[in-house]
Amino acid sequence: MNQALMETIRTRLTHQSAPAIPVGVSNRHVHLSQQDIEALFGPGYVLTPFKPLKQPNQFAAQECVNVVGPKGTLTKVRVLGPARAVSQLEISRADCFALGIRAPVRESGDLAASGDALLAGPAGYVSLKEQVICAWRHIHMSCADARRLNVVNGQKVSVRAATERPLVFDDVVVRVSDGFTLEFHIDTDEANAAGLKNNDLVSIIAG
Amino acid sequence: MNQALMETIRTRLTHQSAPAIPVGVSNRHVHLSQQDIEALFGPGYVLTPFKPLKQPNQFAAQECVNVVGPKGTLTKVRVLGPARAVSQLEISRADCFALGIRAPVRESGDLAASGDALLAGPAGYVSLKEQVICAWRHIHMSCADARRLNVVNGQKVSVRAATERPLVFDDVVVRVSDGFTLEFHIDTDEANAAGLKNNDLVSIIAG
Repeated sequence: MNQALMETIRTRLTHQSAPAIPVGVSNRHVHLSQQDIEALFGPGYVLTPFKPLKQPNQFAAQECVNVVGPKGTLTKVRVLGPARAVSQLEISRADCFALGIRAPVRESGDLAASGDALLAGPAGYVSLKEQVICAWRHIHMSCADARRLNVVNGQKVSVRAATERPLVFDDVVVRVSDGFTLEFHIDTDEANAAGLKNNDLVSIIAG
Repeated sequence: MNQALMETIRTRLTHQSAPAIPVGVSNRHVHLSQQDIEALFGPGYVLTPFKPLKQPNQFAAQECVNVVGPKGTLTKVRVLGPARAVSQLEISRADCFALGIRAPVRESGDLAASGDALLAGPAGYVSLKEQVICAWRHIHMSCADARRLNVVNGQKVSVRAATERPLVFDDVVVRVSDGFTLEFHIDTDEANAAGLKNNDLVSIIAG
């Protein structure tokens, strides 16, 4: 098997593996517990939806916070709603360097030994301990999408971006739930590296 | 040919295609003409080497400039030496967003219809017109390296990063010259997306 033949196979697999999956680029954001919302914005405060996200019931809130690290501060970091049980800050590797903190690449909610940062809001501060991650790239999809794409929940797949900066993301986690809208979630570093933007299309090439 | 078999082939090719190639992460930087050096730093000014780069005769200079765009400014952008015939600013996609400018993904020196920006130094300003790019990822290598890796100058290859964020960069340009030291050059977006840092090792998996 020579390398030229392998490339042919890769190309064919790309073309076999429609349907395409829309990209959602996640800028840095924070999910907050109700307790932390009140610490940052005031007693009894409730988030105000700004615009809906593609995943059901999720929204970008009008509220933003500042994130403070030992080396720098990120201003106007968007809060996503609704409130969650545990606050979780999701940033890029570039943000880690800017803040001067370490944050592991993790699936949402997998927070043990993750990073620390300080959140600053108009009414106070919240110290995040083991609550900061770089999100592991993943695909949200419904059960029908999963059947059509021949993958199962938790599976890791490879995803091709056929862009001006073409690349293949390996170890992309599939998340299946009937509530989910088909969407490939990557962060800003990943989007920039691949030349991808919101609603561009990618394909699964290997499961 | 099923997808599992293809993955096996990809893995085997990775293992066949040693030797590994060290990574060099290029932060934003600028190459300057002698005329622009003097406009920015003063008449008769000569760059002062700060530290050598891996490629022969190339150095990071002590000098830095500010880069000004319509939306923002990047401070302390490193000048690389020696002086070139034409000044060229190399930034990441993230930098493009911060500055509010467009810059195409290009090989070094391929500047037609590339981006614009203003450079600010202690002695003056330089307006760059079609002199701003996002560098196309590429591998520098000697003729001996090229023979060993079975590639030729100008060829595009795929490069696997077997990291915590594994991915395959496609369309990586091979640049062969007996002056070159073996090095895979990527920008900070690409390094962050792949979890790569300076001197990490990658492999060519397909030519």
